[in-house]
Amino acid sequence: MTFDLIVNVAWKEEILDPAGQSTTKVLQQMGYAVDNVRIGKQIRLQVEAQDQDRALEAGREMAKRLLANPVMETYTVQVVEA
Amino acid sequence: MTFDLIVNVAWKEEILDPAGQSTTKVLQQMGYAVDNVRIGKQIRLQVEAQDQDRALEAGREMAKRLLANPVMETYTVQVVEA
Repeated sequence: MTFDLIVNVAWKEEILDPAGQSTTKVLQQMGYAVDNVRIGKQIRLQVEAQDQDRALEAGREMAKRLLANPVMETYTVQVVEA
Repeated sequence: MTFDLIVNVAWKEEILDPAGQSTTKVLQQMGYAVDNVRIGKQIRLQVEAQDQDRALEAGREMAKRLLANPVMETYTVQVVEA
C-alpha cells in the first residue's frame, strides 16, 4: 500500500535561526506585529508499506538517518489521510 | 493577544523539485520504497492580533507578500492551539 507522509523538521529551540531572525525583522518593517519567526522544512513523500504503522516507522527511520540532523533539529512524522 | 501561526509553503505541483528528486534517489539507494519526495518550508511565528481571524488574515498577507512566491509556491496558514 502507498502512504503519503509528512515529515516536519525544525531547529531545536536552543539553535539560532538567522534566516528566521532576518525574516522577523523584514516582517516587522513591513508593519506586522510578529516575533520569533522560525523556518524549518516540510517534506512530503510517498512510501510503500504493509500498513500505516510500518509506513510511520519507515518515516521515522528516514528522518533519523537522512531528513533531519539529530544534533540540531527535531522532527515529527505523520501520515496524511488519503 | 499572541497567536502562534504555522505557514506551510510548498512548490506548486508543476514545478520541478531537484532537491526532492535527489532525496528520493538517496532514500531509494538506502533501501526505502519511497517516491515523490517534495521539500517545502514550514514557518512558525508569533503574531499579535485582536482575535484569531485577524491573526490568520495577517498570516495570509505575510505569506502572500513575503513568505511564499505566488508564482511557484502554494501556502497554507493555520493557528496552533495554545
